[in-house]
Amino acid sequence: MVSFKFELIKEDKKTKARVGRFHTPHGIIETPIFMPVGTQANVKSLSPEELKEIGAQIILSNTYHLYLRPGHILVEEAGGLHKFMNWDRPILTDSGGFQVFSLGDLRTVKEDGVEFRSHIDGSKHFFSPEKVMEIENALGADIIMAFDECVPYPCDYEYALSALRRTTRWAERCKAAHKREDQALFGIIQGSTFRDLREQSAREITALDFPGYAIGGLSVGEPAEIMYEVLDYLTPLMPKDKPRYLMGVGAPDNVVEGVMRGVDMFDCVLPTRIARNGTVLTKKGKLVIRNATYARDFGPLDEECGCYTCRNYSRAYIRHLLKANEILGLRLTTIHNLHFLLTLVKEIREAILEDRFLEFREEFYEHYGKI
Amino acid sequence: MVSFKFELIKEDKKTKARVGRFHTPHGIIETPIFMPVGTQANVKSLSPEELKEIGAQIILSNTYHLYLRPGHILVEEAGGLHKFMNWDRPILTDSGGFQVFSLGDLRTVKEDGVEFRSHIDGSKHFFSPEKVMEIENALGADIIMAFDECVPYPCDYEYALSALRRTTRWAERCKAAHKREDQALFGIIQGSTFRDLREQSAREITALDFPGYAIGGLSVGEPAEIMYEVLDYLTPLMPKDKPRYLMGVGAPDNVVEGVMRGVDMFDCVLPTRIARNGTVLTKKGKLVIRNATYARDFGPLDEECGCYTCRNYSRAYIRHLLKANEILGLRLTTIHNLHFLLTLVKEIREAILEDRFLEFREEFYEHYGKI
Repeated sequence: MVSFKFELIKEDKKTKARVGRFHTPHGIIETPIFMPVGTQANVKSLSPEELKEIGAQIILSNTYHLYLRPGHILVEEAGGLHKFMNWDRPILTDSGGFQVFSLGDLRTVKEDGVEFRSHIDGSKHFFSPEKVMEIENALGADIIMAFDECVPYPCDYEYALSALRRTTRWAERCKAAHKREDQALFGIIQGSTFRDLREQSAREITALDFPGYAIGGLSVGEPAEIMYEVLDYLTPLMPKDKPRYLMGVGAPDNVVEGVMRGVDMFDCVLPTRIARNGTVLTKKGKLVIRNATYARDFGPLDEECGCYTCRNYSRAYIRHLLKANEILGLRLTTIHNLHFLLTLVKEIREAILEDRFLEFREEFYEHYGKI
Repeated sequence: MVSFKFELIKEDKKTKARVGRFHTPHGIIETPIFMPVGTQANVKSLSPEELKEIGAQIILSNTYHLYLRPGHILVEEAGGLHKFMNWDRPILTDSGGFQVFSLGDLRTVKEDGVEFRSHIDGSKHFFSPEKVMEIENALGADIIMAFDECVPYPCDYEYALSALRRTTRWAERCKAAHKREDQALFGIIQGSTFRDLREQSAREITALDFPGYAIGGLSVGEPAEIMYEVLDYLTPLMPKDKPRYLMGVGAPDNVVEGVMRGVDMFDCVLPTRIARNGTVLTKKGKLVIRNATYARDFGPLDEECGCYTCRNYSRAYIRHLLKANEILGLRLTTIHNLHFLLTLVKEIREAILEDRFLEFREEFYEHYGKI
């Protein structure tokens, strides 16, 4: 049996922040970590070499999308997702739960699973816990997620309760159906923003003894303060010796706050999506590089940044590329934004190791200007 | 004064093919060469590092496009085109002649120059030989092209005559207006497909003593045989000791035939444009990689190819990326197609140097299957 050991290297004395190492068949993930999202077996616009230069240790890919196109069987025939996409470091696949529940009118939830229509061609499909395990086993990621019922925000108590109960029943079925020892199956805690429901879900899911646990159903529209409040009471209920993954969260300030509350793993499309729209992240906040004010600005996106983009190109050139719809423009802003997030978690890890996480956090907000 | 020496290294004994070296301020160009097109200060989707790995020695950029966006003054302020786009090897800028004459109803030709409307916002502009030299001087390419009147195919004799005469008068004005000694101004021979007009244009333009000469007005819709016929009688009228550039030509078979007829330089959007549409070039001809037949083909685009794409990715993955509108798909096919063209001209140079150009050509057609 492959070991998915989580080494807890260091715990911050003043906060719940911690540094760890999660061992997977494709390498060690140093936590806290941010995972770039490669929805369709590619982090949009980038090559694997570029991701490595940026410092990506693990990427996330989406089961729902890969199941529909090109199909999990095809990926399996190709030798699995790593080989198919030429990425030899760890991969995490989500369960498609968030996607199918986001389909709204296009899906019907039953106890057995969810019937839904493809967003591509309208064809009918069915995801059950067993089916999702079959798909994720075929894709072959290092970490796979259980199929859960994800509720929107706001959500009434009864619905949140029924969803968390189903999530537990589905987690049991996922555990029973999961077939590969070289993949770590993570359970997902639901319960919306109700403290007793989150506590119940944490109890039920952790009782199933997964090698890692995710917090689902946050960053779905609730104010950041409510998300932080949930984290405050939830992470102490999660095992210390297992990685904690806050799903879909990746704004720089949310990452800092998540780490402070004991979260180890993050993912989010935000840095890559805003990059393609011409917005870049810097320690001094966001910069809308498409703005006319940067037309003749021949300095780098961020003076302090050492990424490929900032070493070689000016704001004026990047703005020109974006205005002219040149693909290289998106590549350069995507590289910069992912580098920003991966440098942020690296600096966070260093700060925790050097007992200065709170100072780091304070300094971060001094420039980034938000809390 | 900067020397733009053209060394004629070797002339083929059986054909007009030749190998040369053209010295420019940003390095030596080994001819015959293919120049990737970077219309808007970027070869679509690629980074300079990727272009270098592919073997690009010189790229072409378009004066018309750069004048409109971001503007030649801005590029000059950025330190010139090389610095602006982070490319330290030679660049050639065209004159915008082909683009403004292609605008049809959007332009009015006068003796002084051409009035036209921007394809971007409809704004009014005026290109004269002097204005084009001002723009190209500001952009700062190593090789710049004279402003010419480019006629379509077919074209009546009178129009072709008047255009070639104007092209000569404009070439004189370009020569007088050109201000930078570190840029080589090339003259352009017009005359459509009329032998006496081509001869007249060649006489008039070469009399002006440029450091290089281009053949304009070909590959504008005429059958390839007619293009080859023009080359047959035209290149012997062009000086042996100056590079000869066949504008807008770059289909693999056209390159082989052009070289055989004494051409040294080629450029074309074809390899990059068809790449973005999912068609790739191989020694066995074109492959429409979007076709369903490649969905489960886990081999490389071309078994014999050593490019980054073929070393790392399967047809199935590239097809998936293209079908899913993933930018990396275009990058991979663009890399492959440019690598194909640049490998082709490299092999051509080697074949000429080793006195086996005709054998190379025969072998090329044996697989490529066309002539």
